[in-house]
Amino acid sequence: MNYRMITYILGWILLFQAGFLLVPTVTALAYGEEAIKGFLLTMAICLAIGSLPILRKPKKTELRARDGFVIVSLCWILLTVSGALPFMFVDLGAANEINYFDALFEAASGFTTTGSSIMTDVEILPRSINIWRCFTHWVGGMGVLVFIMAFLPLSGGRNMHMMKAESPGPSVSKLVPRVRTTALLLYSIYFVLTVVMFIVYLIGGMPVFEALCTSFGTAGTGGFSFYNDGMNRFSPFLQVMIGTFMLIFSINFESYFLLIKRKWRDALTTEVITFILIVASAVGIITWSLRDTYGTVWEGLRHAYFTVASLISTTGYATANYDLWPELGKATLMMLFFIGACAGSTGGGVKVSRLVILFKSIAREISNAIHPKQVKKITVDGKPVEQSTVNSVFIFFACYIIFFGFSVLIVSLDGADFITNFSAVATALGNVGPGFARVGPTGNFAFFSNLSKLVLTFDMLAGRLELIPMLVLFSPKTWKK
Amino acid sequence: MNYRMITYILGWILLFQAGFLLVPTVTALAYGEEAIKGFLLTMAICLAIGSLPILRKPKKTELRARDGFVIVSLCWILLTVSGALPFMFVDLGAANEINYFDALFEAASGFTTTGSSIMTDVEILPRSINIWRCFTHWVGGMGVLVFIMAFLPLSGGRNMHMMKAESPGPSVSKLVPRVRTTALLLYSIYFVLTVVMFIVYLIGGMPVFEALCTSFGTAGTGGFSFYNDGMNRFSPFLQVMIGTFMLIFSINFESYFLLIKRKWRDALTTEVITFILIVASAVGIITWSLRDTYGTVWEGLRHAYFTVASLISTTGYATANYDLWPELGKATLMMLFFIGACAGSTGGGVKVSRLVILFKSIAREISNAIHPKQVKKITVDGKPVEQSTVNSVFIFFACYIIFFGFSVLIVSLDGADFITNFSAVATALGNVGPGFARVGPTGNFAFFSNLSKLVLTFDMLAGRLELIPMLVLFSPKTWKK
Repeated sequence: MNYRMITYILGWILLFQAGFLLVPTVTALAYGEEAIKGFLLTMAICLAIGSLPILRKPKKTELRARDGFVIVSLCWILLTVSGALPFMFVDLGAANEINYFDALFEAASGFTTTGSSIMTDVEILPRSINIWRCFTHWVGGMGVLVFIMAFLPLSGGRNMHMMKAESPGPSVSKLVPRVRTTALLLYSIYFVLTVVMFIVYLIGGMPVFEALCTSFGTAGTGGFSFYNDGMNRFSPFLQVMIGTFMLIFSINFESYFLLIKRKWRDALTTEVITFILIVASAVGIITWSLRDTYGTVWEGLRHAYFTVASLISTTGYATANYDLWPELGKATLMMLFFIGACAGSTGGGVKVSRLVILFKSIAREISNAIHPKQVKKITVDGKPVEQSTVNSVFIFFACYIIFFGFSVLIVSLDGADFITNFSAVATALGNVGPGFARVGPTGNFAFFSNLSKLVLTFDMLAGRLELIPMLVLFSPKTWKK
Repeated sequence: MNYRMITYILGWILLFQAGFLLVPTVTALAYGEEAIKGFLLTMAICLAIGSLPILRKPKKTELRARDGFVIVSLCWILLTVSGALPFMFVDLGAANEINYFDALFEAASGFTTTGSSIMTDVEILPRSINIWRCFTHWVGGMGVLVFIMAFLPLSGGRNMHMMKAESPGPSVSKLVPRVRTTALLLYSIYFVLTVVMFIVYLIGGMPVFEALCTSFGTAGTGGFSFYNDGMNRFSPFLQVMIGTFMLIFSINFESYFLLIKRKWRDALTTEVITFILIVASAVGIITWSLRDTYGTVWEGLRHAYFTVASLISTTGYATANYDLWPELGKATLMMLFFIGACAGSTGGGVKVSRLVILFKSIAREISNAIHPKQVKKITVDGKPVEQSTVNSVFIFFACYIIFFGFSVLIVSLDGADFITNFSAVATALGNVGPGFARVGPTGNFAFFSNLSKLVLTFDMLAGRLELIPMLVLFSPKTWKK
């Protein structure tokens, strides 16, 4: 293990965190909020601790695979731990009395783009705190480590390990030969799309501050709300726009790169087509199930579209209290928690590309049962899928379900009802946000015990990093020589 | 496809079914029940239809892999369809007004050893109907096709296909070189254990008829109850005995064969040890969670032991209404629905041996992430596990979860609450029996719509045959030349 290099990179993470904190600090300054002290204090802490390990550049910059996993895991834990400090230092109002577990939960929920909150009343929070919450979504959406690595003049080609660990999906393909250029391209697409969205929201009549917060939350598929009733107060036009942008940020960014290069056919991958089909089916089923719930079909369709977009993109914004919808609608939404977005997007969940590989493997197994002697390879978009990738997909899926089961077990200690526990864990692992019953769109996560909050925090981080880096971090083998 | 041979074997199935019907017929005769007419009519139908295809022996007896899968699936469907007839022909009492979907559900629940019932009042059922319900458990427990194949002087060695498809678990090892001898050995163990159990129940003070029904239900890990309050009325001694026998029938029968051969060490496989550990942990957790529910720790322990044994063995008998237990206890029980018994037993679920392989694969994946260059094989009990077996395990697990999700979706159409739908499907797929809320130990499945009952019937059959044979049956590829 290259400890020197690990602390060096973690030092840089803290410096970048200090930089991220400029956003709420400037906001607090602009609105003359008391909260500025809390942000300045956090920045000072990050700068002080972060500068120590970077004073001298490590001599040995080589990183092995396990170093990569450990760095990724620790990087996200460090972002969470330091990002939680403002919630402790700033007065959040009497209704939002929180302890450090709550703060950790809120920060993890922000960076992992989950958007579950322990805040009871988000409308009384200082604006600087609300923009910090939303901005963490934007930072976490594309992943921060790859961004940093792209700027640090460090190693040769070893970054791919970390990019693989931090990026969502079963396989990362480099768009261009150099990792750094790939990273810069992806971040540029992310940035430009966010700006376009921000302008659309302004045109739709959203005030600047809210448009900024919503843009950050939508781009990162985060979903922290700054109104207690979510997105319900915005106009139908804005709701449809937010819904559409949530879907846009759920699609593999590689497709946008291919669109820019005018490779229209290649951009429409099996994953993207499947994703669109799932969205269409879910919207159809739910609109049908809502036929007696809303006044007009169009109102039902709008809420169905927004909610499906919100949950499959794992954002978690709400225009309606879907917890009161008919069972069929709720069961459909529950499935979306697990399905999630496309690989290579900012969304969470199991990912559509994994499901494509899963279903193709099952079809092959049936085919093998019928014709035992044939040897068939799985192909996606005309390219064969390596058996090792197929294995990883299955391992991931199994891990996901096992993590899920054990977390529900621990959270059940609190005594909340099954659907609350079930959906709380599902949304934490899938980085979705609100669930059902007590953690539904009108509820929050405040009532859970510290232990449950810690488990859910862990689930959010594990879900964001797609399990394996966290498992590596906690494996004793990693720490053996 | 060897259609001639398929109908020939299915004909034999009906003849055997006619034979099985002797048990309730004799019972009806002994108790002078009107129901005898219904059983005689069903026998006549089975004999009439069954004899047609067996009049001439097929010339070509060779069966290919897909023939095997198709025969297994059709055999179980035929058992269900014909086994449902007595429920239609016999007067079940005013409280148990049923249609043919109900009858199918009840028969499938019997043969697949699920034990979920659509009967509202089982105490008013004729004794012959109750013994038929319990006897189907016993027939379905060990599987009927292998039994028949062992007696039919047919083919050479091709039976292994069917044995594989019908026997639960990731791999079937022949105990002795010949399939027929293996089958006879397993059935002998099954028979002897059932007789021993019957005697123990009699010693415990159970009346003969009830001891017989309970023995059939326990041996097959079925769980149909003939009292509305389940096993609650029996003495603590009997409850502990029933619990213990449920566990005995959840263990791989191969272990008993090895015990007979005095290979003590080999009998205690990783699977058996894991199974015992899971049972002990679950009993421990639930007893702890029940500390304030029952008067004494011992009462809590007894109910915990019985319920854990009942659910992990996928039997489904109840001594307590566990639906009222604390959330932690309920969540633990919910996990047992999925875990299930050992491979090669009469129990259902995912099976412990699959979980062992799953966890070992995950450990290998983590190990590979840490040391990418090492090549490691998975071993269980010192023997390497083929990669194809590992793949099948993952495919099975993924299929299980996917079947589960889609079934919950369809069942949700009825509008029952989530925990009812979730547990109804979980217990159907795992062949467990009762679930939670409306399908809890004091509830039944009568209120579901015909569509839901059909889906649950399919799930029970698919769960019993471990999914793949059913998928093969419904794959268009199977029916192509």
